[in-house]
Amino acid sequence: MTRLSNGKQILNQVDGAAADAVMASLKDIAPDVGNYIFEFAFNDIYSRPGLDLKQREMITITSLLTQGDTAAQLKVHINGARHVGLTQQEIIETFIHCLPYVGFPKVLNAITVAKEVFTNENDQSATNEPRD
Amino acid sequence: MTRLSNGKQILNQVDGAAADAVMASLKDIAPDVGNYIFEFAFNDIYSRPGLDLKQREMITITSLLTQGDTAAQLKVHINGARHVGLTQQEIIETFIHCLPYVGFPKVLNAITVAKEVFTNENDQSATNEPRD
Amino acid sequence: MTRLSNGKQILNQVDGAAADAVMASLKDIAPDVGNYIFEFAFNDIYSRPGLDLKQREMITITSLLTQGDTAAQLKVHINGARHVGLTQQEIIETFIHCLPYVGFPKVLNAITVAKEVFTNENDQSATNEPRD
Amino acid sequence: MTRLSNGKQILNQVDGAAADAVMASLKDIAPDVGNYIFEFAFNDIYSRPGLDLKQREMITITSLLTQGDTAAQLKVHINGARHVGLTQQEIIETFIHCLPYVGFPKVLNAITVAKEVFTNENDQSATNEPRD
Amino acid sequence: MTRLSNGKQILNQVDGAAADAVMASLKDIAPDVGNYIFEFAFNDIYSRPGLDLKQREMITITSLLTQGDTAAQLKVHINGARHVGLTQQEIIETFIHCLPYVGFPKVLNAITVAKEVFTNENDQSATNEPRD
Amino acid sequence: MTRLSNGKQILNQVDGAAADAVMASLKDIAPDVGNYIFEFAFNDIYSRPGLDLKQREMITITSLLTQGDTAAQLKVHINGARHVGLTQQEIIETFIHCLPYVGFPKVLNAITVAKEVFTNENDQSATNEPRD
Repeated sequence: MTRLSNGKQILNQVDGAAADAVMASLKDIAPDVGNYIFEFAFNDIYSRPGLDLKQREMITITSLLTQGDTAAQLKVHINGARHVGLTQQEIIETFIHCLPYVGFPKVLNAITVAKEVFTNENDQSATNEPRD
Repeated sequence: MTRLSNGKQILNQVDGAAADAVMASLKDIAPDVGNYIFEFAFNDIYSRPGLDLKQREMITITSLLTQGDTAAQLKVHINGARHVGLTQQEIIETFIHCLPYVGFPKVLNAITVAKEVFTNENDQSATNEPRD
Repeated sequence: MTRLSNGKQILNQVDGAAADAVMASLKDIAPDVGNYIFEFAFNDIYSRPGLDLKQREMITITSLLTQGDTAAQLKVHINGARHVGLTQQEIIETFIHCLPYVGFPKVLNAITVAKEVFTNENDQSATNEPRD
Repeated sequence: MTRLSNGKQILNQVDGAAADAVMASLKDIAPDVGNYIFEFAFNDIYSRPGLDLKQREMITITSLLTQGDTAAQLKVHINGARHVGLTQQEIIETFIHCLPYVGFPKVLNAITVAKEVFTNENDQSATNEPRD
Repeated sequence: MTRLSNGKQILNQVDGAAADAVMASLKDIAPDVGNYIFEFAFNDIYSRPGLDLKQREMITITSLLTQGDTAAQLKVHINGARHVGLTQQEIIETFIHCLPYVGFPKVLNAITVAKEVFTNENDQSATNEPRD
Repeated sequence: MTRLSNGKQILNQVDGAAADAVMASLKDIAPDVGNYIFEFAFNDIYSRPGLDLKQREMITITSLLTQGDTAAQLKVHINGARHVGLTQQEIIETFIHCLPYVGFPKVLNAITVAKEVFTNENDQSATNEPRD
């Protein structure tokens, strides 16, 4: 399997719908960046042994919260964290743990994104079966 | 048990020697900051349910790597991560996972600190029993 | 008085309406973070002697401007700065003073938020009595 | 020629329309900041010998991408980069080059702004003559 | 009086010795940057009405603490803060106030620099007359 | 040619000696990171068409200056910028151009690193032939 197709498969596991949206938005303007996301981020890094996908998404949302100006990426990876099995509570707890290291503003920003993601999720659950 | 004594006990579990050094350095100039580290960081946050200490140290070192200019704190918490049970490989893998999110410079900085911590650790092991 | 109730009282002095809004938004998803804002930020820190509330809000808006991605928090604390007695001119002057340290982009972002806050304030003054 | 009028002339070369908009928005609240943009940024810095305007805009958009929370300023300077002669491809290539240094989130944010600028540009070209 | 000579005079008031050292280190490699520090930072900004020098140094050290990787500049401006009349306690209190906004690592870094500056100061006082 | 060997060849063009040092330091602790530097940074990114190596190093040192806490990486890439043909003056001018975007502290930090690199270079030139 190529780096590209393997990366696609792993990103699909993490958050297929979001991945499709990001790739579609890059198609006309910077398609190579889409390929690097598959090949480098998801094939080379996410598929490494040593950490499971739940741990990897926990690290990802921590890094996104800490650097700031990442609401769009946090939305994708909070969804991704849910898809690989982290509970809503574990995600919020990850953000709360960052309080002594980054202060309140960045944590409040991340919680605001999580609230939006969880609300969408709960709305969908209302017409399907609950996931949490 | 008070917030202060409970925080002290938890920080002791994570990295007793480093904690003593930080507190000693704060004693004359800003002792209240030492107390807030015990009471807020370690009593209020680290002792919360929902995540175990291994997960908490993984989040901590990710946040420190991502914000940069934290070599001193990374040193304490890489040691802390080891004390609560993360392997050297899991720590390096956590840093490598950050590559697509923060780029090479911050990851290389964190690996440099880890290398120093692990070297000290191995030197001590040479005269005692190995830990990894 | 408890840390919680004392913190509530101080935050109320700084910006009661905004505080209520933040707490309400945290209620369902992360109520403990609301409590930490009262207990740690406003009881433990804001109520310390050594600096008055005008100085504290000047420091707060400087730190928010400097770290970036804090439009929501700047809005709360520009309002807070006004409530504790800083003039519109002192707030803008604080932002201008940051120019040599952070450059134009972050200062322009903060001025944009201040403009919105001051416009709301002036609109309300038009139907009440002016405050500045 | 004064620092002010010389700065105005250079900024006009880079992006006249955006410059007018920024100055208009600063007029009532912080007009001195507008003057500093002319006098310091554009007279003192942009008019220095040693680098041409294409190189200067390449450096500017790199610094804006890297610091984050600069969508408004990136919009002005991606337009500016186009006005002084950088192609759409050179701008995207500049952003892609930052991938190993800042990671994907900041690069994706900058590409999103570029896409919006280029779309506006192409819409205008459809009714005028193309520029690229 | 020119912008240059006025800026020199103000910087001299804030921290003459440190200013001389910075200028000397820039002399061979980037003397214009030294001039911009005098002309822009100290003439255009520090000499503005609306805030006094104590307030300006409080804002400066807050911005330096918040952005990180500024130990050299913090050293100059903690000295500067002392020269314009801030007490050691007010400087430490300014840093402590930043805890809820930036977290512990950056505050601990700033306190470490302050400790070094205050120790030098106290050593000199031991052979002269105390200043605090 | 493989991604690895091509990346090695390009990094060698930019700064062979520094590259060897970085790889050697990674060998025992995180050799894969060394490979990613060759394969992703230097093969995938630096070898892309659209920008030449002088432009790429100009972008690199701008990004490193802007993010801060990158003295080690700046040292490598100021050397690299020299090897691919940027003059000492163009490097300093790149840093000066960042002043309005990031403020003085980060620019002064970068100039300090450049001064050290240029001094080493000049010392070597004294016993060989000059390069600038």
